[in-house]
Amino acid sequence: MRIVVLTGGIGGARFLLGVRAYAREVGAEVTAVVNVGDDLLLHGLKVCPDLDSVMYTLGGGADPERGWGRVGETWTVKSELAAYGAEPSWFGLGDKDIATHLVRTTMLNAGYPLSAVTQALATRWEPGLTMLPATDDRLETHVVVDGDQGQRAIHFQEWWVRYRADIPTHRFVFVGAETAKPAPGVLEAIGSADVVLLAPSNPVVSIAPILAVPGLREAVADGPAPVVGVSPVIGGAPVRGMADRCLAVLGVECSAAGVGGLYGARPAGGLLDGWLVAPEDEGTLVPEVTVRATPLRMTDEAATVAMVRAALELV
Amino acid sequence: MRIVVLTGGIGGARFLLGVRAYAREVGAEVTAVVNVGDDLLLHGLKVCPDLDSVMYTLGGGADPERGWGRVGETWTVKSELAAYGAEPSWFGLGDKDIATHLVRTTMLNAGYPLSAVTQALATRWEPGLTMLPATDDRLETHVVVDGDQGQRAIHFQEWWVRYRADIPTHRFVFVGAETAKPAPGVLEAIGSADVVLLAPSNPVVSIAPILAVPGLREAVADGPAPVVGVSPVIGGAPVRGMADRCLAVLGVECSAAGVGGLYGARPAGGLLDGWLVAPEDEGTLVPEVTVRATPLRMTDEAATVAMVRAALELV
Repeated sequence: MRIVVLTGGIGGARFLLGVRAYAREVGAEVTAVVNVGDDLLLHGLKVCPDLDSVMYTLGGGADPERGWGRVGETWTVKSELAAYGAEPSWFGLGDKDIATHLVRTTMLNAGYPLSAVTQALATRWEPGLTMLPATDDRLETHVVVDGDQGQRAIHFQEWWVRYRADIPTHRFVFVGAETAKPAPGVLEAIGSADVVLLAPSNPVVSIAPILAVPGLREAVADGPAPVVGVSPVIGGAPVRGMADRCLAVLGVECSAAGVGGLYGARPAGGLLDGWLVAPEDEGTLVPEVTVRATPLRMTDEAATVAMVRAALELV
Repeated sequence: MRIVVLTGGIGGARFLLGVRAYAREVGAEVTAVVNVGDDLLLHGLKVCPDLDSVMYTLGGGADPERGWGRVGETWTVKSELAAYGAEPSWFGLGDKDIATHLVRTTMLNAGYPLSAVTQALATRWEPGLTMLPATDDRLETHVVVDGDQGQRAIHFQEWWVRYRADIPTHRFVFVGAETAKPAPGVLEAIGSADVVLLAPSNPVVSIAPILAVPGLREAVADGPAPVVGVSPVIGGAPVRGMADRCLAVLGVECSAAGVGGLYGARPAGGLLDGWLVAPEDEGTLVPEVTVRATPLRMTDEAATVAMVRAALELV
């Protein structure tokens, strides 16, 4: 059995812990296609927050309290950069994390594509599944916001981390998406999958940038595998993060029904065959999509495995 | 009064503490022309060991025990790089130090010349004198050594740090020297100096690479200012470092007379008007050079100021 998961960072990484555990039970192979829209250059270092969240979480190196970054992290470089007045100061890189970015940046500068770099980094972390960036090409989520003189576009991380998504916002732009190609292995994995899962990640800034890579949405929507999404919204509120603010920009209601409708049903040109919602959202309707309610709080691995099992039973 | 000092890293940096103190007493201006031959790229970061030793030492941030690097340094990034198997592993970068290299590398990649970057970094450290790299161009000291299949050239740092200068060695090559230009301000500082001092740095791998920049040796040798050198060798042994191994490669005796002779007398086409040696080397003769003996152990700032005063009294 082959499972493909489209995923963003922290929530998706936790979901993958359950997918991996389930896959080990049944002997399945898992491929995670990871969002790169959050990626950015900081102090000359290529930072891939979602790939790293997945890698650290599956490799046992993530900070369970903070959710992002490394457990036992230290911040010496950050405070030294501040002493130099280096900008941007609103995004802090931990010391352990910086080593990852140094290795990645050195390899990228040497000509390796991001997918090869990701594989090289993963030899240390042994995530137990195949991690693929959605694309090896530059694809960055920018956000069009109000500026002093009309609208301006800022990097997603600036919007998210610096402004906490709390400024007048018009739309999201996936810079580079038009010419990006799916990373090697992505289309093959989707095309040979027995099921495609949409992790309970942010639909607007985690899943959408993946689908914005030309050919990728089509591979999922028109592919042989059934597609099941897991709602990142429970009872009208995102489980974590600020999906509500992202959905508001699109004019989509922050609800399990709203996100399900945003993805849409495959027969209607959307993505979903099945949509897993929380018991709080029992009765959610998405036209032409099989909806089922099951507990969606990823409190531990067993609970997450139960989610995965419920998702797979949907199709 | 204007004092120019040609200098390498740690020993030179300590000497500069004395020069700066002396200059503050008499109201003199000091320009340090610093060796860049030790510079290297590590994990994509531009590392300038001598510039940093000078900057950290004069800025009060150097580790007094270890001699190099930052006081209170931590090594998180280094151990993480090792966990990735990142090479080279024989040169360790401290966490605090890495912030300096990140700022420098980012500025260099943005197009600023090394001299401008050095000035920018110095705004934090306030070294109290003008720090100039010998050149903004790439000039690296490589070392020709025995390899498995004939001779091979390795970076100076590999020879020095990895092999502790303890392999069969043929010669030093200053890669890029032919086309390097003195950094902005270097020739002007030498041309308007009242005295030029050669710090008690390694003559072969600290001072020689500075002089290898076309026009720089001539500016010193043919300039208006008298030139006084301070011996880095006391009683036949280098005060610190491995100058003995470097001198052996050149077939020069490791003695105050040997180094003095290597620099040579200005009237004979060399550099020196005066040569300051330690009491242990009283009686040292360098033809056509005024030699004087005075304590050369830089045990504290007062002792170093006394050295500087003695050097200036020589001419």
